[in-house]
Amino acid sequence: MLPPANDRVKTEGKPVADVVEFGGERKAPARDQMASLAALVEDDLLKVNQVIVRRMESSVALIPQLAGHIVASGGKRLRPMLTLASAVLCGYSGERHLNLAACVEFIHTATLLHDDVVDESGLRRGHATANALWGNQASVLVGDFLFSRAFQVMVEDGNLEVLRILANASAVIAEGEVLQLGTANNTETTEDAYLEVISAKTAALFAAACRIGAVVAGRPQAEETALESYGKNLGIAFQMIDDGLDYSAREATLGKAIGDDFRQGKVTLPVVLAFRRGSEVEREFWHRCIVEGEQRDDDLERALGMIRRHGALDDTVERARHYGAMARDALGIFPESEVKTALVDVIDFCIERAH
Amino acid sequence: MLPPANDRVKTEGKPVADVVEFGGERKAPARDQMASLAALVEDDLLKVNQVIVRRMESSVALIPQLAGHIVASGGKRLRPMLTLASAVLCGYSGERHLNLAACVEFIHTATLLHDDVVDESGLRRGHATANALWGNQASVLVGDFLFSRAFQVMVEDGNLEVLRILANASAVIAEGEVLQLGTANNTETTEDAYLEVISAKTAALFAAACRIGAVVAGRPQAEETALESYGKNLGIAFQMIDDGLDYSAREATLGKAIGDDFRQGKVTLPVVLAFRRGSEVEREFWHRCIVEGEQRDDDLERALGMIRRHGALDDTVERARHYGAMARDALGIFPESEVKTALVDVIDFCIERAH
Repeated sequence: MLPPANDRVKTEGKPVADVVEFGGERKAPARDQMASLAALVEDDLLKVNQVIVRRMESSVALIPQLAGHIVASGGKRLRPMLTLASAVLCGYSGERHLNLAACVEFIHTATLLHDDVVDESGLRRGHATANALWGNQASVLVGDFLFSRAFQVMVEDGNLEVLRILANASAVIAEGEVLQLGTANNTETTEDAYLEVISAKTAALFAAACRIGAVVAGRPQAEETALESYGKNLGIAFQMIDDGLDYSAREATLGKAIGDDFRQGKVTLPVVLAFRRGSEVEREFWHRCIVEGEQRDDDLERALGMIRRHGALDDTVERARHYGAMARDALGIFPESEVKTALVDVIDFCIERAH
Repeated sequence: MLPPANDRVKTEGKPVADVVEFGGERKAPARDQMASLAALVEDDLLKVNQVIVRRMESSVALIPQLAGHIVASGGKRLRPMLTLASAVLCGYSGERHLNLAACVEFIHTATLLHDDVVDESGLRRGHATANALWGNQASVLVGDFLFSRAFQVMVEDGNLEVLRILANASAVIAEGEVLQLGTANNTETTEDAYLEVISAKTAALFAAACRIGAVVAGRPQAEETALESYGKNLGIAFQMIDDGLDYSAREATLGKAIGDDFRQGKVTLPVVLAFRRGSEVEREFWHRCIVEGEQRDDDLERALGMIRRHGALDDTVERARHYGAMARDALGIFPESEVKTALVDVIDFCIERAH
């Protein structure tokens, strides 16, 4: 059953988008594909939000202020929803998944705070970033706090396997972010190097979020690894589309300034493909804009034209579909159920979303 | 038994200082007070250094490069030495304390990396900071990596109590750092507020480092809390003296630019005392320099004069001695031993040190 429209807007924090600007035909409006999962975990997610608000408390007032800003600013709560749904898929009926889903969101939020400092971003999802409002100092330190708080909550939960999974994911995320510094401003970045970066910085937490659903349910290793594989491939597809959107969706729809990655000299999949498919003249253009960082007023427009001409966006979606298909098959060992269908729908949501 | 002079220099990474510029009479040269502890844990510390080098490995080359820079740049390894010595004091004879001491150093190193970004420091102990060499981005992310790696190593150790203690300490450190942002540039900061900041940002990790020595040894709660209390009060004394040194020791001896805190508008104990003991004219001076951030060429000189005139440095040392005395008494429940004497000597080292 779908939640009332108002609730869905609250869950998503975004209006329904009615255009897709790349990727060819769509199976269904992106919102509905997410809505079935949102409806299934709605009650649990409400409790997770309460845990998040309660556990970001601190006698140091700036911490809940700043953390509250980023936690509230339009996130989809996709990662904690994956933990909740994975636990349900595994037949779990306890309460531990609520706290652990909050841990996943805390780790995600900590990385967002640090990312925005690293990227010197001023906007995230159309809202001023925490570093723009409170400064880099507070963002670094509150990120550290949320990260520590996640581990405190995990320790209270008391499962070493969960701790191991999320500690590993955290280390891999940091490695991915450092690796990304090396691919930035480097047009020679291969698709493999790009994959390595997004597997670490994004997919590792998706994988961990799903896997711990099976761990709390005490399910066999095969189900743990199936959910891990689902999460990992979903995360790769998610990030590819995210990177495509930076060259595609309208700023207002995305709530994110178009061309951010371009201006920052990040080499994401659309650029990897356009560069490799481009003429000598085009490669010189990419070199000037990305390596030398010399960008003129109409360069983003030119870049968009090249990306379109070489089908780099369509093929970014095609590549994402490949990982989406792997995610779908990873769930094959689970019997059909409403939640399994919802998890499969999320793959389509991540790939077809236009906002 | 003392190690040969060469080894001591290696352990400390600093020449012996032969002057103390504040704090009145000294009991013994500061180096000797540290040397007995260094000698007692020398073999273990060598192994800890090996763990540190091995566990900061990553396929992402920048991580061991940057982490190695800060780990190697002249730190005393005081915190891991406290873990080692506490374990020995509790009669522990296993190997787990080696990995846990490395965790303590990783957490400490992560906070240093983030601190230097927050403070925009260019020098630490006379060496260029990691952020000055590799940029803020890498410092933030490698800090995150080291922090995650610490938790990975703790999870391998498998003791939830240790995880709880260090997760709590990490959260409290972050809270203390955020709290410090609020006392910066605020001459109204009370001594109590200052104490709250240093108890969190510094003493919490000293306390945790000592406490886990008792935990690995499986000692009764009373010994855990005794070591925690020792570490906490030692940490407070240590930070007070550190803050005093910023207005006292010669730059070359300290390996740290004098007046850094002053220029950054940090309100540490010497300033708290000088401000409260000062005339109206003096308070206007502090207000201009610290709150308004308007500093002229000879202002540091003037500040040093006021701090001296009001006995603010001598009394900073007196206050530190109070916490040192509490640290000493906290160890009272342990029978006399070589390592207990060494731990008491460390209190004197922290208070009397001149470099």
